[in-house]
Amino acid sequence: MKILVTGGAGYIGSHTVLALLEAGHDVVVLDNLANSSAESLRRVGELAGRDVDLVRADLRDPAALDAAFAGAARAGAPIEAVIHFAGLKAVGESVAEPLRYYTNNTVGTVNLLTAMDAHDVRTIVFSSSATVYGATEEVPLTEKLPLDAINPYGRTKEQIEDILSDLGDADSRWRIALLRYFNPVGAHESGRIGEDPTGVPNNLLPFVAQVAVGRREKVRVFGDDYPTPDGTGVRDYIHVVDLAAGHLAALDYLASHGGVHRWNLGTGHGSSVLEVIEAFGRAAGKPVPYEIAPRRPGDAAVSYADPSSALADLGWSATRDLDTMCADHWRWQSNNPNGYAEA
Amino acid sequence: MKILVTGGAGYIGSHTVLALLEAGHDVVVLDNLANSSAESLRRVGELAGRDVDLVRADLRDPAALDAAFAGAARAGAPIEAVIHFAGLKAVGESVAEPLRYYTNNTVGTVNLLTAMDAHDVRTIVFSSSATVYGATEEVPLTEKLPLDAINPYGRTKEQIEDILSDLGDADSRWRIALLRYFNPVGAHESGRIGEDPTGVPNNLLPFVAQVAVGRREKVRVFGDDYPTPDGTGVRDYIHVVDLAAGHLAALDYLASHGGVHRWNLGTGHGSSVLEVIEAFGRAAGKPVPYEIAPRRPGDAAVSYADPSSALADLGWSATRDLDTMCADHWRWQSNNPNGYAEA
Repeated sequence: MKILVTGGAGYIGSHTVLALLEAGHDVVVLDNLANSSAESLRRVGELAGRDVDLVRADLRDPAALDAAFAGAARAGAPIEAVIHFAGLKAVGESVAEPLRYYTNNTVGTVNLLTAMDAHDVRTIVFSSSATVYGATEEVPLTEKLPLDAINPYGRTKEQIEDILSDLGDADSRWRIALLRYFNPVGAHESGRIGEDPTGVPNNLLPFVAQVAVGRREKVRVFGDDYPTPDGTGVRDYIHVVDLAAGHLAALDYLASHGGVHRWNLGTGHGSSVLEVIEAFGRAAGKPVPYEIAPRRPGDAAVSYADPSSALADLGWSATRDLDTMCADHWRWQSNNPNGYAEA
Repeated sequence: MKILVTGGAGYIGSHTVLALLEAGHDVVVLDNLANSSAESLRRVGELAGRDVDLVRADLRDPAALDAAFAGAARAGAPIEAVIHFAGLKAVGESVAEPLRYYTNNTVGTVNLLTAMDAHDVRTIVFSSSATVYGATEEVPLTEKLPLDAINPYGRTKEQIEDILSDLGDADSRWRIALLRYFNPVGAHESGRIGEDPTGVPNNLLPFVAQVAVGRREKVRVFGDDYPTPDGTGVRDYIHVVDLAAGHLAALDYLASHGGVHRWNLGTGHGSSVLEVIEAFGRAAGKPVPYEIAPRRPGDAAVSYADPSSALADLGWSATRDLDTMCADHWRWQSNNPNGYAEA
């Protein structure tokens, strides 16, 4: 298939593009490179032995989207499906600059869907997030829970899920997968591609990795008095290569199923912050320094997926454990201490 | 004040523009006239003794919005506040064409807010709807209820409320009023302006009015076995002139209060479908024929506002009763049997 991957130069995007190429699909990446680097795609091309087409364009620009679909059709290889990663993703930033988030994420997606509809492309796999479940204390999280995001970033994901759901309900030609990611970590085992956050990492693993590689002094652990075995928060970390495989499984499913589908992509197991720090220390061959800090408002004690729907429907499940996640993340980080910047 | 009124040529918009002019404000209307007529504004101008500036533009066109704000500033009368009515509003249509609704309403509003921010205009009164409360059976409805819209139209209103709420929380320069309308009916007492629905009216009163004036055969009453005094659904009808006054009260309030405010605009009293049909018959001087039809899915038995917050904060309450609503609506309908079309 010929697949348009928005945000394909980013962390999850680049790993999914590689998996798509390895599975024999044709890929065109649409990315504004606002928070990513074309170097990731150059390396994906090296790993796959095939160059990756990159259209540098912004979802806020309807004419550019139209041109991307029209250009592929004119070249005799029309887009058949879209995997939609592009979007801003930092919770704190979304609280400070909500209009930027609603513009990039919600408006950008409506623009994308409008272009798809105009070009008769109605298969889409969307990057949603477990964030849509909000502050529920129910675990494991199942897809049947109501959506109740608690910050602007999460609300953009919820809005997009609502828009896609209404679209699928209105027009049976659409085939829609909403993938709710838990906590993506790790990197391709080659160590050539991985997460390259701009500025201070918002998520635990890249922060731990930057401490281990010497870019930061120590990890701050927010709260050690939660009702969990070691008192620190428990999350469901999933290897990015497993996550990428979930996108291919969803795309395969949509080839034979219309309608709107929602799947959690997680392992179904939780790891505590201290377990992650210890596992990363084992991977790096040295302990990772940390200090305990107060809890952050809005953080749940425990959150992990019920991934049984994805297993039942897609035959997909995560296979890589926490030690593998840390080993692969460390290989990427230690081989590329400053991410793609030195390349 | 110089006020930009989006959708100012529409039903509620035109009545509010008249009230603004009568209160001494300067008004510029921005309207794409997709579902309204410039004739309404011509008549508003006649009633007010002042012409109304109309910019024919679409919220989906960011450049046109920018030009409207820039043009007013260049002319020495910069926009100071916005009353935002523009949007699509038919529930059934929104189910069939959700992307059109999300584009016009959600994307259009994000575009408007972006233009406002760029031009340092951060006071907005937004046309929300009691629809945001969804299928709750709680009455009276208070502003503290969670938002849970049950159709795409309602979800666009909920999304816009969320966006405005996040914006107000992020930046204290914003002054935001979210007005949740109940069921606007009636017309200006002159009989010169009123509701002019395109196609088959979606709401009860305009349908009843078109039956009374002979444009349609009879009213269909959806369900007479609800747990209400006469078995028909009970709603909170509010005179459009009262509603317009609510917008001026909200605007006054924002002159001295920052932040995000939510007010129900309703009477606090419910009327049944049969009570409305009877009241309209009295106003028209002839009975309005009707037949009983099955319930419609999704219709609540009873819904009416708790309008006490608007009274407490704004000193506003609705003063016109059902007979006045019907008398004024009938004057408009009988003087203009085909709405603005004959003008």
